[in-house]
Amino acid sequence: MPQNTQIVLDNRPVGEATVANFKLVTTDTPALAEGQVLVRHHYLSLDPYMRGRMNDSKSYAAAQPLGEVMIGGTVGEVAESRHPKFNVGDKVVGMGGWQTYSVVDANVPGMLRRVDTTHVPLSHYLGAVGMPGVTAWYGLVKIINPKAGETVVISAATGAVGSAFGALAKARGCRVVGIAGGPDKCKYAVEELGFDACVDYKEHADYISLSKALKVACPNGIDGYFENVGGMVLDAVLLRTNAFARIAVCGMIAGYNGAPLPMANPALILVNRLKVEGFIVSEHMEVWPEALAELGTLVGTGKLRPRESVAQGLENAPEAFMGLLKGKNFGKQLVKLV
Amino acid sequence: MPQNTQIVLDNRPVGEATVANFKLVTTDTPALAEGQVLVRHHYLSLDPYMRGRMNDSKSYAAAQPLGEVMIGGTVGEVAESRHPKFNVGDKVVGMGGWQTYSVVDANVPGMLRRVDTTHVPLSHYLGAVGMPGVTAWYGLVKIINPKAGETVVISAATGAVGSAFGALAKARGCRVVGIAGGPDKCKYAVEELGFDACVDYKEHADYISLSKALKVACPNGIDGYFENVGGMVLDAVLLRTNAFARIAVCGMIAGYNGAPLPMANPALILVNRLKVEGFIVSEHMEVWPEALAELGTLVGTGKLRPRESVAQGLENAPEAFMGLLKGKNFGKQLVKLV
Repeated sequence: MPQNTQIVLDNRPVGEATVANFKLVTTDTPALAEGQVLVRHHYLSLDPYMRGRMNDSKSYAAAQPLGEVMIGGTVGEVAESRHPKFNVGDKVVGMGGWQTYSVVDANVPGMLRRVDTTHVPLSHYLGAVGMPGVTAWYGLVKIINPKAGETVVISAATGAVGSAFGALAKARGCRVVGIAGGPDKCKYAVEELGFDACVDYKEHADYISLSKALKVACPNGIDGYFENVGGMVLDAVLLRTNAFARIAVCGMIAGYNGAPLPMANPALILVNRLKVEGFIVSEHMEVWPEALAELGTLVGTGKLRPRESVAQGLENAPEAFMGLLKGKNFGKQLVKLV
Repeated sequence: MPQNTQIVLDNRPVGEATVANFKLVTTDTPALAEGQVLVRHHYLSLDPYMRGRMNDSKSYAAAQPLGEVMIGGTVGEVAESRHPKFNVGDKVVGMGGWQTYSVVDANVPGMLRRVDTTHVPLSHYLGAVGMPGVTAWYGLVKIINPKAGETVVISAATGAVGSAFGALAKARGCRVVGIAGGPDKCKYAVEELGFDACVDYKEHADYISLSKALKVACPNGIDGYFENVGGMVLDAVLLRTNAFARIAVCGMIAGYNGAPLPMANPALILVNRLKVEGFIVSEHMEVWPEALAELGTLVGTGKLRPRESVAQGLENAPEAFMGLLKGKNFGKQLVKLV
């Protein structure tokens, strides 16, 4: 059996997460039992939700246990199989974790999904045609539910969720405005991802200033907002919402490191009759087939060409993850494992 | 024609509203044109939304113009009529404003509604069987939409909205918990209004302390919350919400006097996958007939016996309104005009 390299959570962060919270270990892959499949991972997905799992506090998901392999989405190929529906060489997507191999009980529904790489590159099943893409789809379609001509806004616009959101919203005839950090990301959002405008939050010291920039980018106000960051960005957007705007709350990355970030003016929820709704895409598995079909078509036809930031080698996953939490990545953050 | 006494908004509040913002004036009632009705007001309703109208800032409703009669719901009787569907002596409800008489163009739909006082006292058409009752109904039925056995909470529990909410929620098999100010109101909520428990927010210096009291009153957590006040009470409730709880935002009275009140921990919207929705009942006229029918039955059968605070005479309306904003009223605040 091949050797397996793993990253486990060694200790919990106090304040900011650091690479010292993780530990690299090496083990043998076990012999397969009947119904099991050995998957060799090609790519590991890094996602903001992982930061929440590192804490021991109450959250929507169970805390990551210490000493166990970090949770994470993976794509790869079947290296050995004792399951009749999976053959060696099949390309598969699953939740293999931060390791180079995983043993999967393929009889458990939803654990492993075979994917077609004819029109969609394998790595995109961790991004635009995977969990981040479906996340964008759910927030846009099921919560914001925009009409053609409405203005929708997304923070972290050039990330995996943001780029899918942009393509999905343009396909629905919306004006799509991004919020991102830095001129390069904003230029990319407009020129490559097809956003109508993009506001650089780093140019603004406070939410009042940022909201003025949003007023220029959204001359007809904001009808829908997809929240990935919280804090000052959320406060700025709320000031520009139209009556009956819908806000899908998917992430509050700005508050992951400790002290809660207050919302400056919640009375706007009443004044503008907003609907603000939090969601976790894994609780809505019923939408995945419809969402993945649309996302696969957008990628296959070239209407969505998501960018990727690829770190090389499992040993570099912790540092790449720290970068993701600080917005240093540009597009979907992956770790290449082969 | 009879003399009409009116209260107009004389100047806008700076910070807290005061009686000096209002002015009492006397005029003649004009002669009626064809289709018009002269209504003699028996009761004027005082409601928190009026405070928002006194400001000049952007809000969901147009600001109250200076020098004009303050807006307000009224019940009364037809004193003169030049409309075939209204006869002298008919009991009617409308938006007559802070004055003893109003001239109403009865051809405009929704301006004047004839009511039956056989089983429901006239004044209750300004409370339980009027706008406040429908407000409670909309938030409970259309936003919180509780299942039997769920726990729902309302702030300002002994007010006109709160008492109707309690009866409507009990009729749906919910555990109903109130939040009110002072032991008398809490006792009344439980003993007279049928709440299962009531928490006195005045016993708590901060939202952490209040949330501990809510934990005792809501041993299974909070599934639905009807927000009338905002600030510390909202923060405390959010800490106790169950996954997928629904929050109907109807008022943020705590923030009416100036500086915005922040929400301490908006990340709970994501962590608990909350739906937080602001609404104004006058934008949902389609539900009024169904809501009023249920509320009328609850009052007519004695299942809802709302309490009233009645000030005597129009000249005392400003002071009664100041008291309402500070929670000094006990039940629906009215001004008796005859």
